[in-house]
Amino acid sequence: MPALLRSALSEENRFQSTSETVAWLTEAGETRKLQVERIPFRALDEWSFEPGTGDLVHRSGKFFRVQGLRVSPDTQSEWDQPIINQPEVGILGIIAREMEGQLYFLMQAKMEPGNPLGVQLTPTMQATRSNYTQVHQGARPRYVEYFLERGRGRVLIDELQFEQGTVFLRKRNRNIVIEVAEDVPVADGYCWLTLGQIKKLLQYPNLVGMDTRLVIGCLPFGSTAGSVILNEAKDRRGVNLERSRSAPQDDNWVAAESLSSFGAKLIYSATTTDSAYTDEEVLSWLTELRSQRRLRLQRIGLSSVENWQQSETELAHDARRFFRVLAVSVEADSREVTRWKQPLIGSTEQGLIAFLAQEIHGTLHFLVRGNVEPGNTEQVAIGPSVQYALGFDRLGDRDHWAPFTDLALDAPAETVRYSCVQSEEGGRFYYVENEYRIVELPAAHWLHPPENYLWVTLRQLQTLLKYGFVNVEARNLLACLSLT
Amino acid sequence: MPALLRSALSEENRFQSTSETVAWLTEAGETRKLQVERIPFRALDEWSFEPGTGDLVHRSGKFFRVQGLRVSPDTQSEWDQPIINQPEVGILGIIAREMEGQLYFLMQAKMEPGNPLGVQLTPTMQATRSNYTQVHQGARPRYVEYFLERGRGRVLIDELQFEQGTVFLRKRNRNIVIEVAEDVPVADGYCWLTLGQIKKLLQYPNLVGMDTRLVIGCLPFGSTAGSVILNEAKDRRGVNLERSRSAPQDDNWVAAESLSSFGAKLIYSATTTDSAYTDEEVLSWLTELRSQRRLRLQRIGLSSVENWQQSETELAHDARRFFRVLAVSVEADSREVTRWKQPLIGSTEQGLIAFLAQEIHGTLHFLVRGNVEPGNTEQVAIGPSVQYALGFDRLGDRDHWAPFTDLALDAPAETVRYSCVQSEEGGRFYYVENEYRIVELPAAHWLHPPENYLWVTLRQLQTLLKYGFVNVEARNLLACLSLT
Repeated sequence: MPALLRSALSEENRFQSTSETVAWLTEAGETRKLQVERIPFRALDEWSFEPGTGDLVHRSGKFFRVQGLRVSPDTQSEWDQPIINQPEVGILGIIAREMEGQLYFLMQAKMEPGNPLGVQLTPTMQATRSNYTQVHQGARPRYVEYFLERGRGRVLIDELQFEQGTVFLRKRNRNIVIEVAEDVPVADGYCWLTLGQIKKLLQYPNLVGMDTRLVIGCLPFGSTAGSVILNEAKDRRGVNLERSRSAPQDDNWVAAESLSSFGAKLIYSATTTDSAYTDEEVLSWLTELRSQRRLRLQRIGLSSVENWQQSETELAHDARRFFRVLAVSVEADSREVTRWKQPLIGSTEQGLIAFLAQEIHGTLHFLVRGNVEPGNTEQVAIGPSVQYALGFDRLGDRDHWAPFTDLALDAPAETVRYSCVQSEEGGRFYYVENEYRIVELPAAHWLHPPENYLWVTLRQLQTLLKYGFVNVEARNLLACLSLT
Repeated sequence: MPALLRSALSEENRFQSTSETVAWLTEAGETRKLQVERIPFRALDEWSFEPGTGDLVHRSGKFFRVQGLRVSPDTQSEWDQPIINQPEVGILGIIAREMEGQLYFLMQAKMEPGNPLGVQLTPTMQATRSNYTQVHQGARPRYVEYFLERGRGRVLIDELQFEQGTVFLRKRNRNIVIEVAEDVPVADGYCWLTLGQIKKLLQYPNLVGMDTRLVIGCLPFGSTAGSVILNEAKDRRGVNLERSRSAPQDDNWVAAESLSSFGAKLIYSATTTDSAYTDEEVLSWLTELRSQRRLRLQRIGLSSVENWQQSETELAHDARRFFRVLAVSVEADSREVTRWKQPLIGSTEQGLIAFLAQEIHGTLHFLVRGNVEPGNTEQVAIGPSVQYALGFDRLGDRDHWAPFTDLALDAPAETVRYSCVQSEEGGRFYYVENEYRIVELPAAHWLHPPENYLWVTLRQLQTLLKYGFVNVEARNLLACLSLT
């Protein structure tokens, strides 16, 4: 059985159990808590509003710039919004290592000022280019050499992926998992976990950081499944958790045992070529959406942004759409720099990010939407079925709900395959929380997708993801899929 | 056997033989020749240099704009160049239809002012959005409804692909092949051809238009090959064209018979998962190149472009790099509009676009290069092994040849798998010709690729192509690969 799949199905860890990991993270959050205080913009020291444009910039010209964007869509009226311009590609990297037949991932307990719990489980290393070229005079990020030096290990994934297209202008990160064969020193604040353990921790609110979700959301857990697992998945799709005990008691057997009914459907969906639409039809659907030029974009100074009000402490939209820009001071004793002040992005409501799934002709499909996003170079990215997250649409505005919102929210409990509140990256976002949900609709009647929507299998979705066509919210949510 | 592969292997056509098609194109070129004359810029009528910027623009503000671009690479000194800004997505579309067991493609004999032979074989339909929304007051392009109305047929391919990143700023076209089941009226100037016939016509200089090459370059001829063909391909890789006569005389047999030794290697390379680098390593190589921000781009007015001289009749680089901008008047009696004047792009030399191929561990690989292209949104696209085409590098500048140029040019005749001069799209380019070459290096020793280069199989290359990562020059060249 492939090591990745085994790890996804297992919480067996010779170093640290899952409950010990929860305790470790909770304790770290309590003892090493950052002191975070909201401050007025004028107290930001190194950050200030640039004369002329009004953009919020760092004295060094580095890090990022909060500027304005005027967005003119074809189909609705024009809007202005602030947008974060950070023209560099960072790295979100996880080191993997197989030890005694189990594939482990080196994870970190990391503090960020915007984390609701203070500490979250993050990748081995996360760094902007400014970080690892030491622009802000901190230490060189630990473990960075494993990702910068080619040939240190075997590449499991290495993909360029967009971040929030509603907030960032063309910001992308490299998502890397590298499997090494050598001994890796485990520094204080780091630990080895199986993929199954990380999946279990995702059942808790706010414990697993966004960057971790993004990287593991890229892992193709189905594509290398062994034949025993596959047959098991095929047999068990949606029907019966009970099975005969006649199969051999080998590795595959053990793994197949721990596969849930929904997990079996996932594996099957991730591997079969059965699908409601051919791969060519799926790509054609996306090509059509992308060919229609939807948004005209004009970069403007932050002070020219209309319908946003700036107070001493925050910049917010008049109708409480999108997000808020605010400022904090941070004090810590274990980060690269022990005191700093920075702008952060706040939300105006708890968002909702949901996938509707349904078996079509015996194969589980996911309902995806062509999302228009001003900060994505392509303007149209593949998003989840329902998305309210820092954008124009507000969950609180029930009169203008997007299609399927009620279907996602009012789903009977027995059809909800995942539901948990998770927070977004605490180095940029201040207590921004979204509910992540996966709902499996009854297979009885096939919901016909309206324009801009399509049903795709997990194999099709993961292929599009690999080539950078799937948005950050959908990738976040895919990470939450569990096989057990 | 899949219809597409059969069509690629066959010149059997109940409507028109290949030699009749050559005669038909040649005759059309002679009898319906466009009258094209170079004129000074000031005689362009509807086109003029915009006050202030100096940009060359159409009175309507439509079509395209020739403006300036200042390019600052990390690794060499800054340069200025003109660039064509045409912010709309056009369509290059071919209608396919299976008739009496043979898959045919509806092709057109089309005149363009910049075609060396006047007439070329083009797709069923080629149109910018301005075309089919009738901005220039011509007729609606014939057959456009097959591509705009969804569900008219089965999508074989529908991909958004970049055009020349050295000349165009982010210009992309949809490349579509749609297979219809209904009768299609064949208008005057159109004909049905097999893919094998189109491949044969590509052995002639300048007869097959660039847009045709681009669309058929997207067709995945290997991926649906039947098992008989596959086994044949596997057996015959590079060894022996002779074979026993014991196989059954069915369709597959006939097709396998017409497969050349190099064709067998191509089919095998397009289908096998054997490869020198894993798919993850290939994507990682590209991710690494794209993560390094290489070019800073600044749009400038055309009159601010340095090191270019503008005479009455052309705008050209001081050192004859890149290309030339010039103006023509055109007279025709069978185009949508019968007289017009327009700017065109000329070249400064005949270019060279070449692939080196080599069997590595028994599988044919192609040497690709990470090409830095200012007009490509991604800045780095996957290009052929050697490329001199309208860019900074000049073939005439032997002292600064890129790696492998001599290997491509000086290859012994028996290793040259393709060599022909083809011209670029005559609606934008004025007699711009490039030599296209494919050279198979002896399998003896594996050429280790330097940085920026990688060996990939045809399957890997076609996958990357499908998702828009392969540049226009490489796609052009892939179209020239023949199985027979």
